[in-house]
Amino acid sequence: MTTASPGTSTAASSSAAASSDAAFLTDFHHVATFGATDNDGVDRQALTLEDKQSRDWMRGWAEGNGFEVRVDAIGNMFACLELVPDAPYVLIGSHLDSQPLGGRFDGAYGVIAALFAALRVKENVAESGQKPRFNIAVVNWFNEEGGRFAPSIMGSSVYAGLFDLDEMLAVQDLEGTSVAEALAAIGYNGTDAPPEAISYAEIHIEQGRILEREATNIGVVESSWYTQKLDIDVLGEQSHTGATAMADRHDALVAGAKIVLAVADVVNEFADEALVSSVGQHVVEPNSPIVVPRRVHMVADLRSSDPDIVKAARDTLHQQIASIALEHDITIKVEDFDVRGKLYFPETGVELAEKAVANEGLSIRRLETMAGHDSVAMNHRVPAVMMFVPSVDGVSHCEREFTTDEDMIRGLGVLTNVATELVNGELSEDRDGEVWVGKSVAEARA
Amino acid sequence: MTTASPGTSTAASSSAAASSDAAFLTDFHHVATFGATDNDGVDRQALTLEDKQSRDWMRGWAEGNGFEVRVDAIGNMFACLELVPDAPYVLIGSHLDSQPLGGRFDGAYGVIAALFAALRVKENVAESGQKPRFNIAVVNWFNEEGGRFAPSIMGSSVYAGLFDLDEMLAVQDLEGTSVAEALAAIGYNGTDAPPEAISYAEIHIEQGRILEREATNIGVVESSWYTQKLDIDVLGEQSHTGATAMADRHDALVAGAKIVLAVADVVNEFADEALVSSVGQHVVEPNSPIVVPRRVHMVADLRSSDPDIVKAARDTLHQQIASIALEHDITIKVEDFDVRGKLYFPETGVELAEKAVANEGLSIRRLETMAGHDSVAMNHRVPAVMMFVPSVDGVSHCEREFTTDEDMIRGLGVLTNVATELVNGELSEDRDGEVWVGKSVAEARA
Repeated sequence: MTTASPGTSTAASSSAAASSDAAFLTDFHHVATFGATDNDGVDRQALTLEDKQSRDWMRGWAEGNGFEVRVDAIGNMFACLELVPDAPYVLIGSHLDSQPLGGRFDGAYGVIAALFAALRVKENVAESGQKPRFNIAVVNWFNEEGGRFAPSIMGSSVYAGLFDLDEMLAVQDLEGTSVAEALAAIGYNGTDAPPEAISYAEIHIEQGRILEREATNIGVVESSWYTQKLDIDVLGEQSHTGATAMADRHDALVAGAKIVLAVADVVNEFADEALVSSVGQHVVEPNSPIVVPRRVHMVADLRSSDPDIVKAARDTLHQQIASIALEHDITIKVEDFDVRGKLYFPETGVELAEKAVANEGLSIRRLETMAGHDSVAMNHRVPAVMMFVPSVDGVSHCEREFTTDEDMIRGLGVLTNVATELVNGELSEDRDGEVWVGKSVAEARA
Repeated sequence: MTTASPGTSTAASSSAAASSDAAFLTDFHHVATFGATDNDGVDRQALTLEDKQSRDWMRGWAEGNGFEVRVDAIGNMFACLELVPDAPYVLIGSHLDSQPLGGRFDGAYGVIAALFAALRVKENVAESGQKPRFNIAVVNWFNEEGGRFAPSIMGSSVYAGLFDLDEMLAVQDLEGTSVAEALAAIGYNGTDAPPEAISYAEIHIEQGRILEREATNIGVVESSWYTQKLDIDVLGEQSHTGATAMADRHDALVAGAKIVLAVADVVNEFADEALVSSVGQHVVEPNSPIVVPRRVHMVADLRSSDPDIVKAARDTLHQQIASIALEHDITIKVEDFDVRGKLYFPETGVELAEKAVANEGLSIRRLETMAGHDSVAMNHRVPAVMMFVPSVDGVSHCEREFTTDEDMIRGLGVLTNVATELVNGELSEDRDGEVWVGKSVAEARA
């Protein structure tokens, strides 16, 4: 465990900053050993023993550095630093869980950078003697990834009031273990009241190629894409592969394969990359080599910057799936779920990030996020700032996900800068639960 | 538990037979309660607790009726009746394991009918005072279905010397449990020497529509289809569904869906129903709703009466799969496994069944089996007779599989008749390990 020493002069500050940067990198690479895979990735799905290791590390680090750690009922962890008694909190953070065979940067970078940024904010407050308006807390959101328990972005959505707590505690993984059981099993079924947020900031890897291609240091997110999922249940009839005539079969997997291809091909009805689609979860029953499958249960994912494109693609798929059901004389159920509206981040937050980047002498550009993030959920509740650092080759959710140490250090500096402004009161006037959903601040105010 | 009383006169024999038939039906329907499902099926996969229940029942029934029970190293159960000290055994039987959500007739009918047939043979021997040439044993073969542990027809293939014992003991299910571990877990890791077989007979449900359509009581199998499986491993690249451009993806599931359709469509290159094909096992990794799949591992199954048709279909699929790999810029590995040659049952055995059916005043026809059976493996080692009773609607490997009580009783009578001839020495002269593989007896002898 490492802590930054408060500086006492400009030269000492600069040296302390360098030492804090080194400590950050040491800790970041240490956390990457929890659930480390053979090819430099991590496998640290929500509430596994590997997730517990990273949670225990955060608790130890935070308590050792003077934070008060709270765990709420959905397992979100908050490391709180009280600077102003009874004031609300600026929350900064991300998530320590990963995809199965995922990368070591996605989420973990944002939490560990936030721990160091919060400590620097506290030290800067002590050094400057200025009284901030708000407290600061670092958050590790429960189950951002959603690989084990669906839907994703679960902990921050419960905090933001978008998902119901009891409903989420009852969600089961494919083995039938509920969130409530899994939280209790690793001792993170918390009972603490979470800190009351006034604003939120998060830094994350881009998971795309734009910053790398344009050689830009930081991205600031203006808006998130419209996304939705389709729960598709293909119900055929089980029979013997070695005794049932082809004409007598109602093969759920053959029908399911046509749906997988329909989901992939629907993007061709729109401009290049205007829509992205996929089937990520796909389970065959009974999954025996000599039984014609009776059921395929799959989840399709549709995303676009333009909500109308997602809606048009959904309608096309509904029609095609109805034809496939008819052709195979089987039942196919299709349900919408996890529909997330296009959401704008507050313009004042975007400008705050631009100012912070300028202070650090770095380059920045505005962009959209195709991926969901905890900041998207939090932006429903309080004004949020979402920033990206570059991803090498743009790859993510895989072991070869990579961001350089230099880019991580740059992001840490910018996050510290933004957090400092937030505890001093920036953005808090923009708070309005309804403003940022589905329209820009400018549109909302017009 | 019920036993048949030996008859003492013709009238008493007829009444004893009726009582034995009733006892058979009672026991058959009792065994169907082990692993019973909501819709009249059973779920009794190899070496589960439900399989153990049916094994324990067989042991209790057999010991209670004077059989000596032996369990060999692969978990095959033999209930032996010694009629002639030191002579080899006529084996009759089938398997008590089922597919996941399978039917209650497939396999279990053949084992329970064999128990009652063996008892009647013993009683007939006692009654007639004639000295038979051979002993008789009833066998419950381990893992015919292959749903949990692949390949199927495992226990009889080990007994017949077609599969290696140690290799099969090391086979793992999808959870990583080995056959050896699973046998030990339910106490069926036997150490007994199995009885030495001289001939084999099995009765089974048809799992097809021919007998029902032609209103024929019994089918006798002349030959089995040529079958093979393909192990297909589609290796793409994992990435984020919400952050990866469509053009940058190497989606294993989209490529896999094209393979599933290629396997289904290849049958169209041949005459109607000359080839049957399927993909029954199909597992997606990492199987997360927001991750582009990195891997699909599937098993395809090809079957035809004509080996050349299977070989042509296999070649077509190899070419198509190579194109799919190229198109998606991914690796796809394809391996042949579980290749089972077309196999003829001995003509003398077919004629023996025809004579037995005539004795019972029933109708019979010759047919081929598309499905694999323990008798197909056993026919490699000793002359085997395989008989079918009708399946309602021809459906199998599903909960609504059905055969009437009347048809089961008819089959029991025919099996008893055949077994009586076998213990008296019929078919034993035909023993020749090489004769029946890949050609008819007539061809082999020509």
